[in-house]
Amino acid sequence: MQIAQVRGTVVSTQKLPAMTGVKLLLLQMIDHDGNLLPRYEVAADQVGAGMGEWVLVSRRAIAPQPMGATEQRPVDAMVIGIIDTVSVDKGLLYRK
Amino acid sequence: MQIAQVRGTVVSTQKLPAMTGVKLLLLQMIDHDGNLLPRYEVAADQVGAGMGEWVLVSRRAIAPQPMGATEQRPVDAMVIGIIDTVSVDKGLLYRK
Amino acid sequence: MQIAQVRGTVVSTQKLPAMTGVKLLLLQMIDHDGNLLPRYEVAADQVGAGMGEWVLVSRRAIAPQPMGATEQRPVDAMVIGIIDTVSVDKGLLYRK
Amino acid sequence: MQIAQVRGTVVSTQKLPAMTGVKLLLLQMIDHDGNLLPRYEVAADQVGAGMGEWVLVSRRAIAPQPMGATEQRPVDAMVIGIIDTVSVDKGLLYRK
Amino acid sequence: MQIAQVRGTVVSTQKLPAMTGVKLLLLQMIDHDGNLLPRYEVAADQVGAGMGEWVLVSRRAIAPQPMGATEQRPVDAMVIGIIDTVSVDKGLLYRK
Repeated sequence: MQIAQVRGTVVSTQKLPAMTGVKLLLLQMIDHDGNLLPRYEVAADQVGAGMGEWVLVSRRAIAPQPMGATEQRPVDAMVIGIIDTVSVDKGLLYRK
Repeated sequence: MQIAQVRGTVVSTQKLPAMTGVKLLLLQMIDHDGNLLPRYEVAADQVGAGMGEWVLVSRRAIAPQPMGATEQRPVDAMVIGIIDTVSVDKGLLYRK
Repeated sequence: MQIAQVRGTVVSTQKLPAMTGVKLLLLQMIDHDGNLLPRYEVAADQVGAGMGEWVLVSRRAIAPQPMGATEQRPVDAMVIGIIDTVSVDKGLLYRK
Repeated sequence: MQIAQVRGTVVSTQKLPAMTGVKLLLLQMIDHDGNLLPRYEVAADQVGAGMGEWVLVSRRAIAPQPMGATEQRPVDAMVIGIIDTVSVDKGLLYRK
Repeated sequence: MQIAQVRGTVVSTQKLPAMTGVKLLLLQMIDHDGNLLPRYEVAADQVGAGMGEWVLVSRRAIAPQPMGATEQRPVDAMVIGIIDTVSVDKGLLYRK
């Protein structure tokens, strides 16, 4: 997974039926020193991440499907958790 | 997912049977400032995106299969939605 | 998918049983202006593409399996179609 | 797989239910000469790797599921082993 | 798939149970002119490739499972064949 910061949102109304109800966040990737990288990912969010928060994004995974789903959600990136802390060596790189 | 602009189309008649009826768009990737990047993707479109529109492209996902399909569609990129708005921080980067 | 040109072939006799009968082409990637890129992919071909032809290559997809297959083919790239035309904006970038 | 060194940990309490109990390590990638690269990966660890150890990280694989799992774990990187030795040509690049 | 040369081996004893008995090779990637690239991959080998040989490596594929397997092998790269010849245009780039 990569570390990213929530920077914005993307709205789409004309979309695949399987995308109905999926909230999309614009994430900017963060390097292992805590700096913003010039790369982004639009990811599905089922965790409820807010603007400016650091999150873990999983890419190219097959998204977990809701129970009884008849169609796979075709997302290639999703927020899997809001980050509390990132520790590197003996220091704390980030605390929420 | 990445944000891309519809720039063209690709036509192929001699292809895998599973590709029959799949519309292929040439998409140019867009960075998080809204500029065109020197990268493209040919993606399957089931959403009906038009020339010049901004879309969300999902890559390396396993494409959702039509009901009763006996073969998996071997696409590695698909348009999953036409973008209405992209908001970054407190501003609007794009409105359709 | 990416656009590529058929440049050669790769032959392997000592291989995984699941690779038996799989024809392997050496493809050189093409950018969205039609120029050759310094990147290649060895891809399985079930379409019958010939030397010099432009093809669509799907990467990291799970290859469709032959009926009754008991083993998955472990290829990560395959030719899914021979390209007839590529149109960009209002012009024709390529015609077979 | 890639070779990486364990550099830290990432903690997340507000996360997808499927991520419960998953230990997350911050790994820094290592090149084939044994030098640290400016790239990292946050990976799930079920092997028990410790700080400073060299590990093998598998990316974009579908994570093996625990028996009886009803949900797929949406991780795209996992530690699959702690490295004892890396041998290149006739020399030993690394010994634990 | 990419073309690579076998350069070494990686040994891990503390690992996921699903990795038991998997032989791991250190491969260095080769470009389409036959030169070594500064990139490597640690790949599972079920083909029996030897030091210095050129092989085909498939990445991010889901590895074929042994019959009766109850767990997926979490490898993201595997040797799928030892290369006999690579032909480019009308010349022979490599012969074993």
